[in-house]
Amino acid sequence: MNYRMMGKFIYRILVLEGLFMIPALLISVYYQDTKAVHGFLNSLFVIGLIIFLLFILCKDAPSGFYAKEGLTCVGICWIVMGLLGCLPFYFSHEIPDFIDAFFEIVSGFTTTGSSIVPEVEKLSMGILYWRSFSHWVGGMGVLVFLLAIASVDKRSSGYTMHLLRAESPGPDVGKLVPKMKQTAVILYKIYIALTLLDIFFLVIGKMPLFDAVCTAFGTAGTGGFGIKNDSIAGYSPYLQNVCTIFMLLFGVNFSCYYLLLLRQFKNVWKDEELRLYIGIVLGSIGLIIWNLRGYYETFEETVRHAAFQVATVVTTTGFATTDFDLWPSFSKGILLCLMLMGACAGSTGGGFKVGRLLFMLKNLRRNILRILHPRKVQALKNNNRLVQEKVVDNVNAYLAAYVMIVIVSFIIVSLDGFSITTNLSAVIACFNNIGPGFEQVGPTCNFASYGILSKLVLILDMLAGRLEIFPILILFSRDTWKR
Amino acid sequence: MNYRMMGKFIYRILVLEGLFMIPALLISVYYQDTKAVHGFLNSLFVIGLIIFLLFILCKDAPSGFYAKEGLTCVGICWIVMGLLGCLPFYFSHEIPDFIDAFFEIVSGFTTTGSSIVPEVEKLSMGILYWRSFSHWVGGMGVLVFLLAIASVDKRSSGYTMHLLRAESPGPDVGKLVPKMKQTAVILYKIYIALTLLDIFFLVIGKMPLFDAVCTAFGTAGTGGFGIKNDSIAGYSPYLQNVCTIFMLLFGVNFSCYYLLLLRQFKNVWKDEELRLYIGIVLGSIGLIIWNLRGYYETFEETVRHAAFQVATVVTTTGFATTDFDLWPSFSKGILLCLMLMGACAGSTGGGFKVGRLLFMLKNLRRNILRILHPRKVQALKNNNRLVQEKVVDNVNAYLAAYVMIVIVSFIIVSLDGFSITTNLSAVIACFNNIGPGFEQVGPTCNFASYGILSKLVLILDMLAGRLEIFPILILFSRDTWKR
Repeated sequence: MNYRMMGKFIYRILVLEGLFMIPALLISVYYQDTKAVHGFLNSLFVIGLIIFLLFILCKDAPSGFYAKEGLTCVGICWIVMGLLGCLPFYFSHEIPDFIDAFFEIVSGFTTTGSSIVPEVEKLSMGILYWRSFSHWVGGMGVLVFLLAIASVDKRSSGYTMHLLRAESPGPDVGKLVPKMKQTAVILYKIYIALTLLDIFFLVIGKMPLFDAVCTAFGTAGTGGFGIKNDSIAGYSPYLQNVCTIFMLLFGVNFSCYYLLLLRQFKNVWKDEELRLYIGIVLGSIGLIIWNLRGYYETFEETVRHAAFQVATVVTTTGFATTDFDLWPSFSKGILLCLMLMGACAGSTGGGFKVGRLLFMLKNLRRNILRILHPRKVQALKNNNRLVQEKVVDNVNAYLAAYVMIVIVSFIIVSLDGFSITTNLSAVIACFNNIGPGFEQVGPTCNFASYGILSKLVLILDMLAGRLEIFPILILFSRDTWKR
Repeated sequence: MNYRMMGKFIYRILVLEGLFMIPALLISVYYQDTKAVHGFLNSLFVIGLIIFLLFILCKDAPSGFYAKEGLTCVGICWIVMGLLGCLPFYFSHEIPDFIDAFFEIVSGFTTTGSSIVPEVEKLSMGILYWRSFSHWVGGMGVLVFLLAIASVDKRSSGYTMHLLRAESPGPDVGKLVPKMKQTAVILYKIYIALTLLDIFFLVIGKMPLFDAVCTAFGTAGTGGFGIKNDSIAGYSPYLQNVCTIFMLLFGVNFSCYYLLLLRQFKNVWKDEELRLYIGIVLGSIGLIIWNLRGYYETFEETVRHAAFQVATVVTTTGFATTDFDLWPSFSKGILLCLMLMGACAGSTGGGFKVGRLLFMLKNLRRNILRILHPRKVQALKNNNRLVQEKVVDNVNAYLAAYVMIVIVSFIIVSLDGFSITTNLSAVIACFNNIGPGFEQVGPTCNFASYGILSKLVLILDMLAGRLEIFPILILFSRDTWKR
């Protein structure tokens, strides 16, 4: 393991994090929140100090990376980003407990949206902005951002692939264009355009600009931090529907948007993952509307709440317009399953991913066919292209890791004595980067009542979920640290 | 699909089922339970009639099987055995509803032990015997029994492999000896010997002989039907401990006992699955004892209940000495995970199996190593022998099928409106052939309150769990029925 190589990379990321904090500082200055201003200034001082130290120590290190260093580095980067990103919460005393502040910002960067703040309206504007912005930059990825803006020399072109692969969600990261830097640029361009479009539609629905920007950040990253105590419930039906539509849009694989820009409409329409995603979303909304008949006063209200809750859960955003914990069991069951699944690969959403589900189902069918016709060779195809066995094996290992992490986390979190439903849904909500779970961690509650150990486990779950398990898992593997 | 071939096989199984019913009939005659005698006589008449019809129609069919027919046949056999095996309950009016009776006997044959009978002490002796006996024969397998006693001609030696593989639990069915028939004989000899030993230890602990036989049937099959309303709670601590030990013994891979008979002690001790099983059992008991401190009056009581409940859950038996639904969350969490895992492959226990877990963990480690060292070939070993990639792929497909079935069943069962914990644990309890779940289906409750649709889904879950998914899954595959 080349630690100086990693140090060099981490200080670049920290420079970015410091720059990202400046708009939040300016907002605090504008609203004259003295405490928040102090919080941001102190944080920037600490970050600057660490950048300086890392620069002195690691400036001469080469930039190249092997897979091992690359992946380990991604995991460590995200932990460090969390540890330093939470400083404004802590120094401004708006979240006085350090573990709580750490939980909150990791929940932000990982686009989880699980909160330990009981009343968000008490937070200052700058802090609210920083909290929501963490969703936006975490959604597409800080490392991807660095890749998009950094000058890439020839030596380091190899390592960028590992980094992008580690930070981008999905079983099979496709390069949109042959060069990784260009891919990162295209991804961020689409991301920024969609976010601006979201803000536009929110503002013409008469949402104040600050609210619109923060809400769009939460939607784009499929994060879910709101700036109101009642999340999105207090906004007009039009604004709720805008959120529903944009949440679903941000749950689509971004390569589909790139194909749209290239006018390859046929390929978009033929995309099997997209079709399954649309089918599951519409099917779930339909079933929940049927199950909720008579629950709300008007049909419009039923449709709106059903669609919003399905969108917020399937894309793992975590906004809320109603307390779905009060819905009948069948609807709750569907939402729980959507939570487990998540959105499309290559989107900003979390979870197991529709693409992996598709692979899993195809592999299952292949195994059945193998039993029925033992001598026939069964190949696995996706979008009419042959899938490499390596990818299938990786999806399987992912499922195994997923199940193991949920089980181990669930047992540790159970020590705090909450109900099975609370604990299981808390783990799933964090691991899949959703936000709210059921019962004590339902849409109207928060995660503050868990103990320190549980919070640390949930923080690791959020990171593992956002980084697709392996970058975090290898930090705990003896083989990684062996010389 | 050769239906006459299958018919010929099914009538043989039904002859066996009819013969198995006779001791129960004699017990009813001895205790002069007129209703039960009528129930058994009517059932035998119906079974005889069906045997006669199948014999006329299918006697000339050849005995050979392809994998496809073999596997389909196993699934159908078990459904037919359930449909006819429940007739004594139904005709004797002791379980007046047919679906309930069907649920009860499938729960018996699959060694689940989930019951819809609120007070078992009201059932007559013959019916109680039949109920418990269904565990015993279902545990090791009716088809395996047929294989052990039937004369196998050369033509059919091929199909026996498919059948044994379909009915025996575990990822990689090892033949103990080269001939399948001999393997079946050895398995049943060990099974009978262990059962007699269990009865012996129960009787010297002053349990009445009838109780001892029924309890031993439930223990041997890891089924869990008791003959008392309070299951095992009313018996002495000695008897409870005997049950604990024998449950754990029946959760061990039977090939280990065969190795013991061959005096290959070293190979038994080196068996990785056995070691993991022992480790998990002892670890879980230790953690639960720690979590339960102060819950019971004496330490002896704590240890006894902890060990009993771990044994009953990990082997998926389902006996109870205490209501574990009242235990603290941490202990309940551990039990829930043990429920999911189950006992060793090649035992009578259900669940995912320790052996599969071992493969899964090894494959996960291999994937991590692959990421760290992309150019190194990573082989998978078990007990120092290379594991075929086909087996790994099958374990992965099994996990995928497992997750899919739990999710689909959970959603359908949710329609009845019970809580998430109740529904999820009901599905897991049936699918893993455990018996009791939590809350409304906890150790002191029963499954009677579910609707017909849910009961049918749970019946299929029990069958899928006992037959390791694929023999039931292929019944629902279009490819199976295509010409």
